[in-house]
Amino acid sequence: MKVVCICDAGVPEMLMQYMKKLPGCDVTLYTEKTLTDIKSLTTCERTAELRGAEACPVSAEMLEAVREAEILVTHVAPVNRAVLDAAPNVKIVGVLRTGTENVNLDLCRERGIAVYNAEGRNSTAVADLVVALMLCEMRNIARAHGALVQGKWVKMFPNIMMNRDMCRCTVGIIGVGKIGTMVAARLKGFGCRILGCDIFLSPEEIEKRGCEPVSKEELLRQSDFITIHMRHEAGQSALIGADELAMMKKNAILVNCARAGLVDTAALVEALRAHRIG
Amino acid sequence: MKVVCICDAGVPEMLMQYMKKLPGCDVTLYTEKTLTDIKSLTTCERTAELRGAEACPVSAEMLEAVREAEILVTHVAPVNRAVLDAAPNVKIVGVLRTGTENVNLDLCRERGIAVYNAEGRNSTAVADLVVALMLCEMRNIARAHGALVQGKWVKMFPNIMMNRDMCRCTVGIIGVGKIGTMVAARLKGFGCRILGCDIFLSPEEIEKRGCEPVSKEELLRQSDFITIHMRHEAGQSALIGADELAMMKKNAILVNCARAGLVDTAALVEALRAHRIG
Repeated sequence: MKVVCICDAGVPEMLMQYMKKLPGCDVTLYTEKTLTDIKSLTTCERTAELRGAEACPVSAEMLEAVREAEILVTHVAPVNRAVLDAAPNVKIVGVLRTGTENVNLDLCRERGIAVYNAEGRNSTAVADLVVALMLCEMRNIARAHGALVQGKWVKMFPNIMMNRDMCRCTVGIIGVGKIGTMVAARLKGFGCRILGCDIFLSPEEIEKRGCEPVSKEELLRQSDFITIHMRHEAGQSALIGADELAMMKKNAILVNCARAGLVDTAALVEALRAHRIG
Repeated sequence: MKVVCICDAGVPEMLMQYMKKLPGCDVTLYTEKTLTDIKSLTTCERTAELRGAEACPVSAEMLEAVREAEILVTHVAPVNRAVLDAAPNVKIVGVLRTGTENVNLDLCRERGIAVYNAEGRNSTAVADLVVALMLCEMRNIARAHGALVQGKWVKMFPNIMMNRDMCRCTVGIIGVGKIGTMVAARLKGFGCRILGCDIFLSPEEIEKRGCEPVSKEELLRQSDFITIHMRHEAGQSALIGADELAMMKKNAILVNCARAGLVDTAALVEALRAHRIG
């Protein structure tokens, strides 16, 4: 099998070397010249996430490099119509990220090309970060640090009357998949109440994953912290809009370490300005 | 029994009201005039912690107020020789804090007075804070927040090459008492290796409390995070001095939410300046 791996600043050839060991494969490592620095990488990721794979430009060199590929491995470089047309023999696309926004999935489906993603690649990092953000907010760590570097020792913070130990809080997890389950596991030792909702899972399964199964509405109404762990496809409407924000407790803290599109930013700004949450 | 409760800015009469319900007791709530604001309260706490109960001044009104007391309840106000001499009938002293630095324990022992403290009063808050500080440091939350409020989106931090998910870290807990055990419970879900040492506990007991029992030296050498959960008496030498700092990994992060005296500040500053840790 002919394998072409498209390297970039995030997964350079040095990290892609292990692909050369694939048994029975002829592996080429190609570095996409337009993605060799973090800035262009981030721009490409952002374009793919907001506007899909077809909106991402492809270099002539890359179209040339993929010509013989039967297996195509990519990180951030797009796999759009131009690339798939240039590589008529592709049967498998491997994406070294959790998100597949840089791949034209519809076209792959149409052409019978299997797409594999690196599910859970950053999952432990995200789960750590989500709990970190909750604790930080509750214990005013960033605010205290900010004051301290300015030489001030602050004892009173705006949330002084509402901040509590985690064991007295309710955390709501929307989406109890891989990361949501990890967040629940991390929170278990803090003794907080953990609610979960997930349209793909039975109440029994949600419970098995460490959460009390509730409806999305119930979760929004009861939680002190709400964290989102769901996928987001281009064009899909926001999961958290004005109606959902209106259901939340006045002091609720919303953590979104998933895709930005899951929250209606305008509605969030409006809810914060009107002091409806936060 | 005659009970005198000494209120202050931290535990004002409003919060001490419940004491009035003590069956068969004649309860007086007295507010110590020199401790009715946070600043004087903090100064008194600090004096007691650094120099003991005898170093704390007592007002003439307080000496008068305690005269008939058989049970004396205090928060931050000192119970020193002057107070105990003024209240010859005291049989029990109740301290509404975990620390008893504001009480002359030797004198109480000598006079057969029982002293009770509020062990674990803030333990869940401290345990939450300890884990919060670890996660924050690892995920650069305070630094990112600081940059963000200045309108900067920083992607590179000084620890970029060494920060890792918690599941790849080793945490060492020195002192596996009430709070140390709570910290271990909170860390369990993160999948990190948890080491513990405690001179008062058997290896079996340390294991039962969620830690791998090791010597202090082994803990210092192996841990990425070291957190201290021990008592500190006035005059006691530091638990973490130059020798201990020298044993730590170069990238070790030391968290001390216990008393400041447990760490030799001068040695810590020196180790940080010389980049031996941190």
